[in-house]
Amino acid sequence: MNALSFPALTEPDAIQAVIGLARWCGAKGWVPATAGNFSARIDLARAACTASGGDKGAVTEQGVIVLDIAENLDGPGHPRMSAEAPLHLQLYRDDPTIGAVAHAHPLAAVLLSRRHVGAGRIVFEGWEMQKAIRSVTTHEGALELPIFANDQDTRRLGLRVSQARAGWNGPVFGYLIAGHGIYAWGKDAFEARRHLEAYAHLLDLILEEERRA
Amino acid sequence: MNALSFPALTEPDAIQAVIGLARWCGAKGWVPATAGNFSARIDLARAACTASGGDKGAVTEQGVIVLDIAENLDGPGHPRMSAEAPLHLQLYRDDPTIGAVAHAHPLAAVLLSRRHVGAGRIVFEGWEMQKAIRSVTTHEGALELPIFANDQDTRRLGLRVSQARAGWNGPVFGYLIAGHGIYAWGKDAFEARRHLEAYAHLLDLILEEERRA
Amino acid sequence: MNALSFPALTEPDAIQAVIGLARWCGAKGWVPATAGNFSARIDLARAACTASGGDKGAVTEQGVIVLDIAENLDGPGHPRMSAEAPLHLQLYRDDPTIGAVAHAHPLAAVLLSRRHVGAGRIVFEGWEMQKAIRSVTTHEGALELPIFANDQDTRRLGLRVSQARAGWNGPVFGYLIAGHGIYAWGKDAFEARRHLEAYAHLLDLILEEERRA
Amino acid sequence: MNALSFPALTEPDAIQAVIGLARWCGAKGWVPATAGNFSARIDLARAACTASGGDKGAVTEQGVIVLDIAENLDGPGHPRMSAEAPLHLQLYRDDPTIGAVAHAHPLAAVLLSRRHVGAGRIVFEGWEMQKAIRSVTTHEGALELPIFANDQDTRRLGLRVSQARAGWNGPVFGYLIAGHGIYAWGKDAFEARRHLEAYAHLLDLILEEERRA
Repeated sequence: MNALSFPALTEPDAIQAVIGLARWCGAKGWVPATAGNFSARIDLARAACTASGGDKGAVTEQGVIVLDIAENLDGPGHPRMSAEAPLHLQLYRDDPTIGAVAHAHPLAAVLLSRRHVGAGRIVFEGWEMQKAIRSVTTHEGALELPIFANDQDTRRLGLRVSQARAGWNGPVFGYLIAGHGIYAWGKDAFEARRHLEAYAHLLDLILEEERRA
Repeated sequence: MNALSFPALTEPDAIQAVIGLARWCGAKGWVPATAGNFSARIDLARAACTASGGDKGAVTEQGVIVLDIAENLDGPGHPRMSAEAPLHLQLYRDDPTIGAVAHAHPLAAVLLSRRHVGAGRIVFEGWEMQKAIRSVTTHEGALELPIFANDQDTRRLGLRVSQARAGWNGPVFGYLIAGHGIYAWGKDAFEARRHLEAYAHLLDLILEEERRA
Repeated sequence: MNALSFPALTEPDAIQAVIGLARWCGAKGWVPATAGNFSARIDLARAACTASGGDKGAVTEQGVIVLDIAENLDGPGHPRMSAEAPLHLQLYRDDPTIGAVAHAHPLAAVLLSRRHVGAGRIVFEGWEMQKAIRSVTTHEGALELPIFANDQDTRRLGLRVSQARAGWNGPVFGYLIAGHGIYAWGKDAFEARRHLEAYAHLLDLILEEERRA
Repeated sequence: MNALSFPALTEPDAIQAVIGLARWCGAKGWVPATAGNFSARIDLARAACTASGGDKGAVTEQGVIVLDIAENLDGPGHPRMSAEAPLHLQLYRDDPTIGAVAHAHPLAAVLLSRRHVGAGRIVFEGWEMQKAIRSVTTHEGALELPIFANDQDTRRLGLRVSQARAGWNGPVFGYLIAGHGIYAWGKDAFEARRHLEAYAHLLDLILEEERRA
């Protein structure tokens, strides 16, 4: 694995980044009924992550734990680790350019992921908002957002995502899980949030268009 | 009737639990025009409950009364008791594992309850959010939410719910009243709120899907 | 004209009632682009009313004027009087049981008023929320909300409403103006707000149902 | 070019006007993922404008730059200038009655602009809200909102808008860019906001009507 492409965070800074991301999503109504998970990488080996349970929109320091990427992914896990944490850890392991991951349940993401899981992706085309995704410079291209079938075995699901990476076309900073929600990431919490918000807005547009389909 | 499966609350704690639940629903826009009722069990015999009238989203201690479950259900009722309080009291009498009940009017609940009252239930299947309901561990099963016809005689309606319990399949922590709204409950106010929010989110998904039906 | 069915308000109290009603509607997003008007009766002869222009959601004492019901309706009007004030004044003149009037632009009211202006009314039937309208005791009846064609001559429009009163069936505490918005009233600002919120919720339900029509 | 039709602003006042407009749009949810740009004219030659990047809903003084209308439009631009700033500057150059410009991404604007770009315009007819546009005095006329195809070369796009002005019918205080968003302007920030809010509300109405089309 390569070195990080950005400076390591201190534990307290990573925890504050997680809290900021989680509360911002809470204010959007995207983490109903204790849904959602948020993390920020500390260094190559560790990440701060919201613990299992609780309202993520009201999370405090006590609701964030520090995970060891290799140990908690390959081993038995942390006692307060969310069932979805392996999906975060697998992303950090696979890609050292990822500094933060957000998982949330915007309604359009939950619904369209299920409607289009057969196609394996949603493709956005011609929307200016595509430019909010890093490295996209025009509305003219096609932007893919992969979709995976839901699986309660999140380690297995994480590996499926991992294996699919090689086949992704163009910039991909997120994926959908059918009937479940969205994962989005970036080099830091600010970029992860921007990517999440951009995908959510694009999905709202598709959902609205499909109301007439 | 069995003993409670959780410790009794003090009156002040139960009243604060009711206020917290009511205001949280107010902030969601689910108690328009003085709609909604919220309660928390004190012990086997009593529950704190919002009084009749007033904006539940701005309720204070003065807007919460203490009801005697048996006396106010079988007898003439408390002078400030809401017409809907018997539905709360019947739930507490029937099930000693219930610690809090929320009744609110999310738009999707009001609308879908009426659209599907003939079927007597809405069934959720394949949504990750089903796991927010206690004891559900996978998105793969079917989760039922019963629907009852509306009835201004709430004691009679409460008995209809009571009699239907034996026929419920799988975990049920709420029901709909057609063209009226939703009841949801849990072992405490936090769980009642999580169940309410999960059902409301699932109903939003169904409503959106049916826009294309 | 009969005596008032409730005590007169002081000018300052009426002004505060107007401000409370206006800001509450502002928080709901119902007064976009300086839309909306709000008033509270002081006594048989006078009412406090929002002046023309300005964001009603941020109105202060300086944005509320005192109008003379007879003089400002029959005469040339107050220099800061809104073009819509005559509709308020006509209501106060016609019905001494009215203590407050709210005019706002919830999207469903603007849209459905235009869609159904040919029928002259929208009829709600079978919704529990109908009970939030004063004197309605069951969801089983039909509740009418009259619709009038829009007219920039608001004195003429006010008279059309006035003449239509005799033909209203059952309790009517509001009306729609096609492609424009809703008027709702009550004995005081609290009741006017409850009626407004109930009609708006009922219209949201109808709008949602008609998405599938 | 003619003299301004209103007094010049000081730099600090123009910067505060920009911040107020940007944050107001942020609170509406209209500037997702760092979208949006806001400006206020200082005098004939200069305007304050949000810089590139950042959440416009949380912008501070550090996020606003002062641009020279001629120099930054014809020359190489300011180092922190947004790619969309030329569209603002072209408007200020073309029309000395413009004192503020808002660019935002309300969902209905993004979606309908794309759906109707072939027609080159959306026409509003019969809605009271049309009167929120300066000089409109009745709901009875037709109000045009021009639509332009999106173009990453914003200087070229600005010129296309400039050339189209001569063909506009009736009052035009905004335009749409297909799949992108809306521009709206006024003599000052207050009027620009009122025009933006009115167009957004009218577009919401059209979007809702077209759900049944």
